[in-house]
Amino acid sequence: MSTFGQVFRVTTYGESHCRSVGCIVDGCPPGMALAESDVQPQLSRRRPGQSNLTTPRDEKDQVEIQSGVEYGVTLGTPIGMLVRNQDHRPHDYTETDLYPRPSHADWTYIEKYGLKASSGGGRASARETIGRVAAGAIAEKYLRQVYGVEIVAFVSSVGSVRMPFIDAEDRGVQSPVMRDFYQLLDRVSRADVDADTVRCPDAASCDRMREEILAVKADNDSIGGTVTCVIRGLPTGLGEPCFDKLEAKLAHAMLSIPATKGFEIGSGFRGTEMRGHLHNDAWVIAPGDANGHSGRLSTATNHSGGIQGGISNGQHVYFRLAFKPPATISRNQETCTYDGVPGVLATRGRHDPCVVPRAVPIVEAMAALVVMDAVLIQQARQNAARLLPTIPLQPCMTGKAPTEPNGKE
Amino acid sequence: MSTFGQVFRVTTYGESHCRSVGCIVDGCPPGMALAESDVQPQLSRRRPGQSNLTTPRDEKDQVEIQSGVEYGVTLGTPIGMLVRNQDHRPHDYTETDLYPRPSHADWTYIEKYGLKASSGGGRASARETIGRVAAGAIAEKYLRQVYGVEIVAFVSSVGSVRMPFIDAEDRGVQSPVMRDFYQLLDRVSRADVDADTVRCPDAASCDRMREEILAVKADNDSIGGTVTCVIRGLPTGLGEPCFDKLEAKLAHAMLSIPATKGFEIGSGFRGTEMRGHLHNDAWVIAPGDANGHSGRLSTATNHSGGIQGGISNGQHVYFRLAFKPPATISRNQETCTYDGVPGVLATRGRHDPCVVPRAVPIVEAMAALVVMDAVLIQQARQNAARLLPTIPLQPCMTGKAPTEPNGKE
Amino acid sequence: MSTFGQVFRVTTYGESHCRSVGCIVDGCPPGMALAESDVQPQLSRRRPGQSNLTTPRDEKDQVEIQSGVEYGVTLGTPIGMLVRNQDHRPHDYTETDLYPRPSHADWTYIEKYGLKASSGGGRASARETIGRVAAGAIAEKYLRQVYGVEIVAFVSSVGSVRMPFIDAEDRGVQSPVMRDFYQLLDRVSRADVDADTVRCPDAASCDRMREEILAVKADNDSIGGTVTCVIRGLPTGLGEPCFDKLEAKLAHAMLSIPATKGFEIGSGFRGTEMRGHLHNDAWVIAPGDANGHSGRLSTATNHSGGIQGGISNGQHVYFRLAFKPPATISRNQETCTYDGVPGVLATRGRHDPCVVPRAVPIVEAMAALVVMDAVLIQQARQNAARLLPTIPLQPCMTGKAPTEPNGKE
Amino acid sequence: MSTFGQVFRVTTYGESHCRSVGCIVDGCPPGMALAESDVQPQLSRRRPGQSNLTTPRDEKDQVEIQSGVEYGVTLGTPIGMLVRNQDHRPHDYTETDLYPRPSHADWTYIEKYGLKASSGGGRASARETIGRVAAGAIAEKYLRQVYGVEIVAFVSSVGSVRMPFIDAEDRGVQSPVMRDFYQLLDRVSRADVDADTVRCPDAASCDRMREEILAVKADNDSIGGTVTCVIRGLPTGLGEPCFDKLEAKLAHAMLSIPATKGFEIGSGFRGTEMRGHLHNDAWVIAPGDANGHSGRLSTATNHSGGIQGGISNGQHVYFRLAFKPPATISRNQETCTYDGVPGVLATRGRHDPCVVPRAVPIVEAMAALVVMDAVLIQQARQNAARLLPTIPLQPCMTGKAPTEPNGKE
Repeated sequence: MSTFGQVFRVTTYGESHCRSVGCIVDGCPPGMALAESDVQPQLSRRRPGQSNLTTPRDEKDQVEIQSGVEYGVTLGTPIGMLVRNQDHRPHDYTETDLYPRPSHADWTYIEKYGLKASSGGGRASARETIGRVAAGAIAEKYLRQVYGVEIVAFVSSVGSVRMPFIDAEDRGVQSPVMRDFYQLLDRVSRADVDADTVRCPDAASCDRMREEILAVKADNDSIGGTVTCVIRGLPTGLGEPCFDKLEAKLAHAMLSIPATKGFEIGSGFRGTEMRGHLHNDAWVIAPGDANGHSGRLSTATNHSGGIQGGISNGQHVYFRLAFKPPATISRNQETCTYDGVPGVLATRGRHDPCVVPRAVPIVEAMAALVVMDAVLIQQARQNAARLLPTIPLQPCMTGKAPTEPNGKE
Repeated sequence: MSTFGQVFRVTTYGESHCRSVGCIVDGCPPGMALAESDVQPQLSRRRPGQSNLTTPRDEKDQVEIQSGVEYGVTLGTPIGMLVRNQDHRPHDYTETDLYPRPSHADWTYIEKYGLKASSGGGRASARETIGRVAAGAIAEKYLRQVYGVEIVAFVSSVGSVRMPFIDAEDRGVQSPVMRDFYQLLDRVSRADVDADTVRCPDAASCDRMREEILAVKADNDSIGGTVTCVIRGLPTGLGEPCFDKLEAKLAHAMLSIPATKGFEIGSGFRGTEMRGHLHNDAWVIAPGDANGHSGRLSTATNHSGGIQGGISNGQHVYFRLAFKPPATISRNQETCTYDGVPGVLATRGRHDPCVVPRAVPIVEAMAALVVMDAVLIQQARQNAARLLPTIPLQPCMTGKAPTEPNGKE
Repeated sequence: MSTFGQVFRVTTYGESHCRSVGCIVDGCPPGMALAESDVQPQLSRRRPGQSNLTTPRDEKDQVEIQSGVEYGVTLGTPIGMLVRNQDHRPHDYTETDLYPRPSHADWTYIEKYGLKASSGGGRASARETIGRVAAGAIAEKYLRQVYGVEIVAFVSSVGSVRMPFIDAEDRGVQSPVMRDFYQLLDRVSRADVDADTVRCPDAASCDRMREEILAVKADNDSIGGTVTCVIRGLPTGLGEPCFDKLEAKLAHAMLSIPATKGFEIGSGFRGTEMRGHLHNDAWVIAPGDANGHSGRLSTATNHSGGIQGGISNGQHVYFRLAFKPPATISRNQETCTYDGVPGVLATRGRHDPCVVPRAVPIVEAMAALVVMDAVLIQQARQNAARLLPTIPLQPCMTGKAPTEPNGKE
Repeated sequence: MSTFGQVFRVTTYGESHCRSVGCIVDGCPPGMALAESDVQPQLSRRRPGQSNLTTPRDEKDQVEIQSGVEYGVTLGTPIGMLVRNQDHRPHDYTETDLYPRPSHADWTYIEKYGLKASSGGGRASARETIGRVAAGAIAEKYLRQVYGVEIVAFVSSVGSVRMPFIDAEDRGVQSPVMRDFYQLLDRVSRADVDADTVRCPDAASCDRMREEILAVKADNDSIGGTVTCVIRGLPTGLGEPCFDKLEAKLAHAMLSIPATKGFEIGSGFRGTEMRGHLHNDAWVIAPGDANGHSGRLSTATNHSGGIQGGISNGQHVYFRLAFKPPATISRNQETCTYDGVPGVLATRGRHDPCVVPRAVPIVEAMAALVVMDAVLIQQARQNAARLLPTIPLQPCMTGKAPTEPNGKE
């Protein structure tokens, strides 16, 4: 349905041509400073018309908070937010409406609902993601303030132009390329990413990606790409075995973004080719922690992508997401009508030749929603457990040596 | 948590060393013939000790239906199922319990819960998947009987030994390799898959995979691999925009399986490198349907993987899932204790050198659970809509030509 | 949280002094004619300022549909709706803000959230119910069109002025008073209810209730009352054992309405004093059904209130709901400040001396939401079961006589 | 469905004649001491055959914990529990199977599912409540240990034999009868309740109730009654506006217990007849708190039943629940068959003449489940809010006087 999250819960509404699109965020902690200016920046990073790489359609996408905030502070009650659609008249019929657009949702919506929004886009339009981005901005503000969590996504490939790490081998002795990649994950910021409209923080790759997008655009065609995202500063213990593992929720969230075709976390598909003794992330004591506190274990490598057994281990969570080439292209396409009559569909109008630059804030938003929900659920558990009377535990349940030889405390 | 699904809902319980593992299946349609013999075959495909490629630990994994079935017929009430653990005594302390095993969940469970099951495995053990497989078998029986849905998963790579389609280019004019792959998706059966203990239906690849697994095993090491799964015969209209797109639920389900690191659907990561005009799946009239009925549109290619806009389009749904090398290896590993003291962990005991052969029925089960839930939700919608009085619709909402020139009916 | 329903799902937002209040309705069947004029009437029945019995505050409460409807037809996608608050500036501090108002939510909101909306009302304001009423109107339209369901609530008591049925004994041979009551349930309409501003369809009681309300109002005091509601024309089979029995969901829905203190269904509290042989509703063949079709069984009495084992049996569902006297009164009250300093709180301003007349459409809305969700879930089940191959059943599972003497078919 | 709760979540399974009945408890805090002996006492209070007031059928109802506990400590993972049914053979056909039993669920189950369990009871059997009681015992142990919460239910009426408070007027100056009642709520214990098999702590009423039950039993008839429950020691802030108010969840939980017909909280139906100035619970400083700390406000009366605006205020939560007379009676009943043929149904066998004595632990269990879930959700919120940086708040949001004359801090 249109609701995501269990305790921090977002519900969205809106099509491409209705009065407004928006969302209700339920479960936001009370007492947090919040204003529209906290939400607008990510919406502006997502909006169309930002550069010559995106659709020239220009929409302001100004968010209006309806409820849940007073005198600049969250009340803990649902936060309604909306963005008005500048053109909200339903679409008028044209000859091309006889054709379901190839690889669009026109036909499947009719199969599902028996009808579809008059405009092709409807609920499958990218405007649907506005509510997600607005909600994600709130989640992110909480996570940043309380835990210092940083979520940064960037374009890692456009077509066959890939950042070097994607093709690097990773067989234990990490190559310089992989070392560079892990260092990038340590420090990449949104400012780095936004330094170029392509949103790739690797300058050499970035130029080639821009060329690729412009070439595709000039060709009235489109191209896919990948977005990589890193989440730094996550507390340990997030994620719910067994069905709601942290990576499972991330995969769910990411594959719910329009045009996505794949997701990999940590070593991902490459990791399937590694031997276990190289893939295993050995435990080390985190540098600077002289006390040997168990809460400070770290891993020498991070093939796990920061998650083990579905639970965050405190290392960076990173994943890569595949986007297909946009289905809307300004070319004639041989296809057939809803009634099965072969013909040629000529799509006019403005579109994105490649979605990945604009997808960056959407990926960050969905990551924030997943993490925020996981944080609240884990906080409930930890707090609940902390309040219980302490009882002695078997050493084999604790990672501690027994205090007496017989293994009983 | 431990519940999956909205209307067809599975809740599982059980660790590696408790009395039993099992599940409750809620929402199974009433009046379906069901016996333990419907559930056992997939459990037997999943159980350890099947071949020299899997762990030699031998467990019978006999399912016992507790409720919800009488005289061999489902009542529509919750179906309790359990499988007894043959050894259900808690684990006793050994020296190795001082070490969190690398890339296992020992440490993250303690971070999350403050303690862990005495045996390493606990809830992160593969035994947790027994409840999923049992539940999936029920879902699958329904789907097969009512829609003729067929779900077949198979091993598509082991380490760097890949079935040929994985490396094939797919740039519009499909290569012979891709044609073979699509034909395999059309017809591959579980019998084909089980013809070899590797569970790869491509004989040439299969032999090389077996060699790879045995070599790894002889080396006291482990290796990853991928499983590809096809779902044939799905009705159109499944999947709920926007957060619960069919591919998003599949990704969630698949990444919740232990040891998974990636998921791609349809063209997947390869599709990111294709141009839109080649990637778009043109509409064609399905062969043999002379009437041009809109319900019978098909696509000339299937880069979409049977899903558009999050909704099934009636073509095969296929996806590929990445499994990391098992973390348990019979080698000394340099790591450190929970307390941060460096040392060498020597893991003894039996383990799977490669999980993908045994993962096949688990992937099928999770796919069945996703599809079954989507089917029931869509049935509710379709039936609800069908009962409404018919009202005239704007042509642009229907895919039909207007009956009058002004576009109004 | 602020979401109600599993498949037909409503999420609301809004405080008394924010920009707007509203809701998102997810899961509405597609293809239903819907306009703001379908929603407005119930909102207008609920709005303040309708008569001299309610608060003189005058708000228009005009609904604006934001999404999910095009060309007057539901798309099946989420329906966003909002009503603007005419005064949406946050409240300014006054001396009385030092006092938590007795039996209001001021203090508990601060305990829960650490702060509260500046206006006393906040999310506990009756304006929160606007989203419910708007959503209920959509549910109701579906139920009326498809099943002919009629939901009618009315005021059955104000203070100690009770409609006669409330005090009648019901010991098997039904008294004339109870017969009148059951006949009222058969035919009472919203027009009957709205014939008087009190919204009690019993003329004699109505006059006395009006007098009571006006007397209380003149006394700067407030008074409680009860609302009785009947749901006619429900299909059989609604309600989900065991936790989501139809009466349990109704009780949940009704006790979520502000100011409610009790709920009883069918024979209710009175039924606790009856003997089983009188309380049991004997089965009879419904008049006019000569075929003895099992789907047409009816009951001679209806102490069950139309629900048995948590499942609707096709008889009228009726229940009664208790509302306390409004906590806001124009009198001095001896109480203490948040800091525990005794003092006198003088509440000024406009308020309802008795909420039950305006509660009528809210009760109807919540009933519609419960029923709609139950209908969609049951439709999914029935349709799923209907598609299964037919298998022979044991007679003891069907209510049919065995076809052979040994009780086996 | 068969799942209750959002964060502390119980799923039950089982019919009257299947192998076992049981449940899975998900979300139990880890690190709590737990053994079967914590669960068994409430199951034993619920089991049949306890006295001459209940059905003579004798079942041991021994619980077996399957998972989630090791070395006597909860792991935080799902806790599977089961109780074997002593007779688990399906029922054989008899002539009386032609008749749907009046006011039973036989007919509605067939309407809902198209078939029913062969035994009348099936999932509508009181054995379904075993899973609830087992789960409730776990919740209760947590609440008792951490907050000192005490939940005590007792029989407050049997037929027309009522404890005196039920008929007392409550018009501001509390009558001695009401004072006795409130004192009872302060101190009544399970030992008091279990002092007599009737489970009414008022000795005079208790004797008359026993006589009533025995008279009804001798008459082969049945009788209803009410159970009153008090929850002492609840933390403030529990309950989620707007749909999941604490009283709404309690009402949901209570009306999901078989045979219930009504629920009232605090002043309940009686409160509808009170004037606002008498019904309002004035705030007072709790005795013994010299500091005027706002967390220690108390109320002079408790007509609210411990809940205001859907949120617990720290006073006792108390409510009363109506149970109808059991539908199974050992008398001939004129009714008709499933096929509509009039006839006489003679019910044989053992049954409870009055369910309220055995209902007491079930009411306590459901109350514990509601409270436990509310506690965990509120803990998540409070902890989340506590971690935020402190920001200055408008006085009107806090209950504090402004520090400067202009109402701004």
